Amino acid sequence: MCLLWFTKNKEMNIKEQLQYKIDNKTKPFGSLGVLEDIALQIGQIQNTLSPKLEKPTLLVFAADHGLTAEGISAYPKDVTWQMVMNFCSGGAAINVFCKQNGINFKVFDVGVDFDFPEELPIISAKIARGSRNMRNEPAMTSNECSEAILQGRNFVKEESLLGCNTIAFGEMGIGNTSASALLMHKFTGLSIEECTGKGAGLTVDGVDKKLVILKEISEKYTSNSPEEVLATFGGLEIATMVGAFFEAKNQNMVILVDGFIATAAALTAIQIESSVIENCIFCHSSDEKGHKKMLEFLDVRPLLNLNMRLGEGSGAAVAFPIVKSAVTFLNEMASMEDAGVSQKE
Amino acid sequence: MCLLWFTKNKEMNIKEQLQYKIDNKTKPFGSLGVLEDIALQIGQIQNTLSPKLEKPTLLVFAADHGLTAEGISAYPKDVTWQMVMNFCSGGAAINVFCKQNGINFKVFDVGVDFDFPEELPIISAKIARGSRNMRNEPAMTSNECSEAILQGRNFVKEESLLGCNTIAFGEMGIGNTSASALLMHKFTGLSIEECTGKGAGLTVDGVDKKLVILKEISEKYTSNSPEEVLATFGGLEIATMVGAFFEAKNQNMVILVDGFIATAAALTAIQIESSVIENCIFCHSSDEKGHKKMLEFLDVRPLLNLNMRLGEGSGAAVAFPIVKSAVTFLNEMASMEDAGVSQKE
Repeated sequence: MCLLWFTKNKEMNIKEQLQYKIDNKTKPFGSLGVLEDIALQIGQIQNTLSPKLEKPTLLVFAADHGLTAEGISAYPKDVTWQMVMNFCSGGAAINVFCKQNGINFKVFDVGVDFDFPEELPIISAKIARGSRNMRNEPAMTSNECSEAILQGRNFVKEESLLGCNTIAFGEMGIGNTSASALLMHKFTGLSIEECTGKGAGLTVDGVDKKLVILKEISEKYTSNSPEEVLATFGGLEIATMVGAFFEAKNQNMVILVDGFIATAAALTAIQIESSVIENCIFCHSSDEKGHKKMLEFLDVRPLLNLNMRLGEGSGAAVAFPIVKSAVTFLNEMASMEDAGVSQKE
Repeated sequence: MCLLWFTKNKEMNIKEQLQYKIDNKTKPFGSLGVLEDIALQIGQIQNTLSPKLEKPTLLVFAADHGLTAEGISAYPKDVTWQMVMNFCSGGAAINVFCKQNGINFKVFDVGVDFDFPEELPIISAKIARGSRNMRNEPAMTSNECSEAILQGRNFVKEESLLGCNTIAFGEMGIGNTSASALLMHKFTGLSIEECTGKGAGLTVDGVDKKLVILKEISEKYTSNSPEEVLATFGGLEIATMVGAFFEAKNQNMVILVDGFIATAAALTAIQIESSVIENCIFCHSSDEKGHKKMLEFLDVRPLLNLNMRLGEGSGAAVAFPIVKSAVTFLNEMASMEDAGVSQKE
């Protein structure tokens, strides 16, 4: 790097230094588009011109939802534990995508209504055997919700101690698009219709039924603080994820945000601690109705738009190589000066 | 897999068999979106339920353009050879993305106006020292164009013999967005204005000047066949790429199509041999004006939309892990039956 760079460097803050480094790579100005934005964001998160993505890890939180008793899901409630078993045998989408992209994977039972065999590689952290049926009572007591947030914090703290600085969160919980739609409705002010989609595959009639029930529930409760909204309408895996977002921000981690449910958890976390968003990379725009508008509300642009709507953290896992490309070009590309390439005429 | 599968299997063609396999993975129906489309396409290209992406390879073709004498580019012509040198030292965007994603990389001098040191890892295949200035005469003679197409075919044949079944093409050539805009204009019928952008970074005045010159050139010649259009308005690296597309289709390869220039080459190839499109995965939507409309004309949907406009094949290299994810889920995810997961209610 030339002397001019060092002279300038003294007067520039980290953002300006990063931008200078980006702009002097051997490429037309701005030509790496969104990758340049991501490089700038990660450099600022890590406060360095040479960021590293260390031990990328995806934590999946699984829990059941009492509301499934009302028939708001395309799949039976048993699919929650069955899919957790599938995670253990490596056959789920999230397993194969994490393996492909070198992401550590862990699954946490934070509230599944099933007794898993102890020998399975599931981290047992059951707060209850599912959330309550919010048609009758709030999904969680205030204590249950706080406990879930706290353990989400602890799970991430542990990963940080293991050297992880790049984290993603996934979820498994039949019924959790209903909980997420209600959180979105409460926090964005958008109508229940705009927030409610077909989840894992409801028919048109199924969505109509879901809408009627979610409207009834939305009107049933008065919740004032974001924490109350979360306890009333959320779920154990969502509350765990909210805590995980807090701690990931606290640990200065790069946070890969997945689809509709993960974004609803991020939205909740951001209501309580707005700076969380600084560390979030929104990885994809889900095909679940509501997700695009939730991303717009947050004024963020997702990396991918592949019409995926699978959950589990799959969108974050698939997008990870793109995030890696941003760091790779920042660290490894030559500068114009180094390569002796002529500037614009 | 259950007996039913084998029974059904007998009566199903490969497309139906692939769709059946995709639909029975442990995920909601259709929930992997575009990845499912890509898996279906690659399975059909390779005529198998278990496709493999072998020795993925990116070939960069470099050439100069006589039209640069008219001042239609933001960067001086010397940047072509300077960037080829940068490719050799590993400092360009395409180097670092290929390295990141395990893609073999080769660079071919098919028409650069520079004598490269022989010891550099550049495959020397110079047809001329750049195309001609098409303001005065066609960019290539018919012979030069045919020769470029033929050598493009041969380069790909060689990769196929080495065991590569997944190929991408990149380009380096100051001036080649002008050539591509003219090809797009001739083949799509869209106006020169709709096809012409700022390339590597022209100012508004620069684009205006480029437009005037391209309009003049467009009206100067009557070219009837696609081959004549290519010879008149193309470039040596574009014609080489057209031949490469033909052979890649011929060898049943998966073809990763990069941005504006690569898509213009694909468009040209498709005019001559329409089946080429069956093997093409359009990797990204470039920020270069015209690319979105060219993709719409071809009725294809790009994988990524990251506002990149760098060329070199960089969009294809960055998108490759997404293509890999499609193959990965098809080969490695468990089926509903295998995992014992309940179906929809």
